[in-house]
Amino acid sequence: MGIRYTEEYPEVKGALSFDMEKTLFYEQTPFQKIEIVETPGFGRVLIIDGFIMLTEKDEFVYHEMIAHVPLYVHPNPQRVLVIGGGDGGTVRECLRHKSVAHVDLVDIDEAVSRACLEFMPTVADKLLSERVTCRFEDGVAFVKNCKEKYDVIIIDSTDPISVGEGLFSPEFYQDCYNLLTDDGILVNQSESPSWLPELVRGIYLKLNKLFPKMFFFNAHIPTYPSGHWAFGFASKKYHPVEDFQLEKCLADNLDFRYYNADIHRAAFALPSFFREILRETE
Amino acid sequence: MGIRYTEEYPEVKGALSFDMEKTLFYEQTPFQKIEIVETPGFGRVLIIDGFIMLTEKDEFVYHEMIAHVPLYVHPNPQRVLVIGGGDGGTVRECLRHKSVAHVDLVDIDEAVSRACLEFMPTVADKLLSERVTCRFEDGVAFVKNCKEKYDVIIIDSTDPISVGEGLFSPEFYQDCYNLLTDDGILVNQSESPSWLPELVRGIYLKLNKLFPKMFFFNAHIPTYPSGHWAFGFASKKYHPVEDFQLEKCLADNLDFRYYNADIHRAAFALPSFFREILRETE
Repeated sequence: MGIRYTEEYPEVKGALSFDMEKTLFYEQTPFQKIEIVETPGFGRVLIIDGFIMLTEKDEFVYHEMIAHVPLYVHPNPQRVLVIGGGDGGTVRECLRHKSVAHVDLVDIDEAVSRACLEFMPTVADKLLSERVTCRFEDGVAFVKNCKEKYDVIIIDSTDPISVGEGLFSPEFYQDCYNLLTDDGILVNQSESPSWLPELVRGIYLKLNKLFPKMFFFNAHIPTYPSGHWAFGFASKKYHPVEDFQLEKCLADNLDFRYYNADIHRAAFALPSFFREILRETE
Repeated sequence: MGIRYTEEYPEVKGALSFDMEKTLFYEQTPFQKIEIVETPGFGRVLIIDGFIMLTEKDEFVYHEMIAHVPLYVHPNPQRVLVIGGGDGGTVRECLRHKSVAHVDLVDIDEAVSRACLEFMPTVADKLLSERVTCRFEDGVAFVKNCKEKYDVIIIDSTDPISVGEGLFSPEFYQDCYNLLTDDGILVNQSESPSWLPELVRGIYLKLNKLFPKMFFFNAHIPTYPSGHWAFGFASKKYHPVEDFQLEKCLADNLDFRYYNADIHRAAFALPSFFREILRETE
C-alpha cells in the first residue's frame, strides 16, 4: 500500500525508492519540473526532473561540506558567489561565517527558492538575509558579464544534463576563474566517483588545466547515487589541507552536524580507485 | 521489461532495486536463503535472506577495509580468525600479508562458501589456500570453546538479525577478547551510522566496556544501506592511527583498489553526528 517515488540510477541499471505521503509542491517551470514531497523516511524531499536534490534528513552533509571546506581554507572570505543552490542551504551555511559580508546567489529558476521558502524554511530562510542578494538569471551569462570579484565561488548545480549542463563547461570555469580574486577558491559539486568516474575525471581535467591547485574531497550523502559524493576544490593560491584554518575553525566552535576539523582533512584522502581516475592520461 | 531485485530499507521506508538477468544459485539452507544473481549493473551479487551481502562491483571496498586496517596496525599479525565471511573475500585480503601464517575461517553455513567458490571464484578461491582452515560451525560456540590465540579477529557477519544476532552479543565479544593475544585487535562490520545510529551505538557501548581502545572507521560502500558503513576497531594495545605501520604499508606497495595509507588514517575521522552517537550517555 502507499505511494513510492523512484529515482532511476541508469548508470547501474538500478533505482532508489522511498515511500511518500503527499506532494506539497509541483510546478513545471520553463526550466525544469520541481516537486517537494513529504516522506516518512527522509522528511521533505526536493526533486528536480526526477532527481533528488535534497532531503531534510541529510541535506546538512552536502551543504556543510560544500560551504565550510573552502570557507575554512580562505583566511578571510568576504564575498561569496553561489551559482545554483536556489534552495538556500549553501547560503545558510556561508552566513555562519562572520567574515562573509555578502553572498550573491545566482539561480536560473526562481521557483526553486519560492518553493523552498514555503515548504523547507529551515533550509531556505537565510535567502531573505540582508547579507544575501538573489539573482534569478542564467549563471553562465552572469559570470561572463559580472565585473565584481569574489573570494569564493561555490557551484551548487544540478547534474550536468539539461539546465545544469553549462555549469560544467570549460568556458564557464574560465569565467569563474576570472571572477575570483588572486587568492580565490572555486568549489563545485562533482557527482559520484563510484558510479560516474568518467564524469568526475572530465571535471578534473577541465579545472586542473586552469587552476594551479586542484583537488577533490569526498562525503557520505546517502540519498545521492551511490552515497559517495565528490566535490572539486580548485584554488589559485591556497592548499586545502596545508592552509586549513584550524585555529579559526576550533575557535568558532560552530555546531556542525557533519563537518569538523578532522573531517576537513580526512575528506581529501581519496580511495585508490578515485586516485586512478585522475591519474590516467588522456 | 526485465526482472528487478529489490532490497527493502525499512529504516527509511525505502528500497534499492537493480535489474537482474538470471539467478545462478538458490538454496534455502537450515540457516538462511542464499542467492547469487547476475546483474548488468553490479556484476554477480550474493544475497542472503533478501539482503545484499556483496556485489562484484564494490566488494573490494568492504574486504580491503575490514582486513587491511587491523593488519597494518598490528606489527606482526600471524594468526587471524575470521568469523562469518564464508564468501572468502576477507580471507583473500588477509592472505596478501606475508606475516599472516594462518587464517581460521568459521562460518555457520557451508553453502555460502560452496556457492561463492562456484559462482564468484575471484572472491572465494583463496578459501582453498593451504594457509586457511575453513570450519563450518557456529562462531559463537567456536569462540567459547577455542583454546588457541589470535593476533587479529575479524567479525565479518551478516546483519544482527536471525543467524547473525549472536555475533553482536556481549558474551560473544568477551569470548573474542579472551581469544586475542595481549596485543590483539578485533574488527567487526558495524552497520550504517547514517541510518542505524542506535545499532552502532549499541556495538560501541559493548566493545568499549571490554577493550582499552575502541574506535570506528568509515567507508563508502554503495550497495549497503545508505552507502555509509562503519567498522569497529577494538584493541588491547595498539592505537589505529598512532600505531599505523606506515612504512610497512608503503614498502609492501600492494595494488589496492580502495585502501591506501591516506585512507587508513582518514577513515577514522568521524562526522560530527557520528561522534554524537558515541558521546551520549546511557
